[in-house]
Amino acid sequence: MGQLERIGVSLDKNLLLMFDQLISKQGYQSRSEAIRDLIRQQLSQRRLSDPKAKAVAAVFMVYDHHATKLSDRLIDLQHRPASCFRKKAGGQVISSLHVHLNEHDCLEVVVLRGRVSEINSMAENILSLKGVKLGRINLLATEPA
Amino acid sequence: MGQLERIGVSLDKNLLLMFDQLISKQGYQSRSEAIRDLIRQQLSQRRLSDPKAKAVAAVFMVYDHHATKLSDRLIDLQHRPASCFRKKAGGQVISSLHVHLNEHDCLEVVVLRGRVSEINSMAENILSLKGVKLGRINLLATEPA
Amino acid sequence: MGQLERIGVSLDKNLLLMFDQLISKQGYQSRSEAIRDLIRQQLSQRRLSDPKAKAVAAVFMVYDHHATKLSDRLIDLQHRPASCFRKKAGGQVISSLHVHLNEHDCLEVVVLRGRVSEINSMAENILSLKGVKLGRINLLATEPA
Amino acid sequence: MGQLERIGVSLDKNLLLMFDQLISKQGYQSRSEAIRDLIRQQLSQRRLSDPKAKAVAAVFMVYDHHATKLSDRLIDLQHRPASCFRKKAGGQVISSLHVHLNEHDCLEVVVLRGRVSEINSMAENILSLKGVKLGRINLLATEPA
Repeated sequence: MGQLERIGVSLDKNLLLMFDQLISKQGYQSRSEAIRDLIRQQLSQRRLSDPKAKAVAAVFMVYDHHATKLSDRLIDLQHRPASCFRKKAGGQVISSLHVHLNEHDCLEVVVLRGRVSEINSMAENILSLKGVKLGRINLLATEPA
Repeated sequence: MGQLERIGVSLDKNLLLMFDQLISKQGYQSRSEAIRDLIRQQLSQRRLSDPKAKAVAAVFMVYDHHATKLSDRLIDLQHRPASCFRKKAGGQVISSLHVHLNEHDCLEVVVLRGRVSEINSMAENILSLKGVKLGRINLLATEPA
Repeated sequence: MGQLERIGVSLDKNLLLMFDQLISKQGYQSRSEAIRDLIRQQLSQRRLSDPKAKAVAAVFMVYDHHATKLSDRLIDLQHRPASCFRKKAGGQVISSLHVHLNEHDCLEVVVLRGRVSEINSMAENILSLKGVKLGRINLLATEPA
Repeated sequence: MGQLERIGVSLDKNLLLMFDQLISKQGYQSRSEAIRDLIRQQLSQRRLSDPKAKAVAAVFMVYDHHATKLSDRLIDLQHRPASCFRKKAGGQVISSLHVHLNEHDCLEVVVLRGRVSEINSMAENILSLKGVKLGRINLLATEPA
């Protein structure tokens, strides 16, 4: 956190009441913290509409670990992005997390970093692998340097 | 608008600067107005996670007006919800808007009112009609009475 | 519809069973129709990630009709886009629909046409007007000519 | 995978062409695989609209590791859900992944399991912690047992 500023916000009494109830349920300690979070989300959302914006992403997938060679191919994709992803993706796999869900299914979260368009293209390559049953890409725009 | 209250919000100088830039681009006249909108969106989002919450919705679809009898069936669905929708939907079609996009395609927006689950079920019945090519359901939670 | 093709799809018996149950609830008459809809949605979603893609949009908002001059400004924005929207938006308002929700609130759906980035920018200008309490932008990519 | 079935799907030649182009870009080896993925996503989406449905989730957040005691509180929340989360959440933290983004910020992915409503409530408790700057909840419905 850098230097703090304090601004005044006027709002309808009834709207404030509902907001206070919501953030108390969510567990917020203060209105300022809750409003800062709304502002950051809004800024991040906006930045993601630019395909060139820098972002981090979690690719979140459920896959069948019996699927032949899937684990190998996943590891392969993660370690040699340059050769595996089409259009020299440029994005980068940072890390991954593996969870056994049941006797068939695994959950894997792969964290990627790069530009929005690069990340989407890498994520699509991962999610289209045979054996990956469900997947989702989650992007957050990182702050401008 | 009822009675106004004024609250103080502290936030990082840099975050405030980025927020000011964003809302000026969006066309907001004041920070308070922009923050009120964020708060209302958040409250509406939350309410929609309850299938029983009251909401209004716009079902937004592109369809081929050459599709046999589609217009008739759309009108039929909109006028006799009780008999047409499964599980006695309970929701209600309020109004609709029709736009000619090109020689094949029409855009139709149908405004519905009811509980979240009722609206979703009515909207699915509309979007599954043969000839409807693309569709989307847009819900907004209306304020608690 | 142009020329029809028929393709074969193999899938797990259990997955097919769950799909059949879902589309029957949604009201689909055939699996082909349901699968065509999934494919069209996917194509539309992809196209929308390009800020330059052509699209139609419904801006869906709840506003307080007591808000001073809001109706005038909404009409103004819709009729003179070139002068009102920043950055000579280029998008175009096609039509709008108005519904009285209760003694305070109106629902208005404004249909816009243009490129994704133009539409988003016009929609933000509408949703940031004082008195607009809740809003949402809904885009559908129109097929390439 | 259980027993396979083969179904026929008829679709417009032009739609098929665009679909083939898309899935080839995404990296799919076959149309069947791509269509199975669309079907599974659709089923998962539907199930998530029920607050009682069983799901896994990844809570994905960026936080400032200089924030006093945040790491401790995160660990605390993850290890003693029963006592920390309001309304005896019932959900369960399975695992987490930590990545250093830059000198200030960390990315943390926390994998949760439980019912949709439990997971949302746990996730809100995590995302509302002071120092958590951006966050997002990602749910996938797991198949019915």
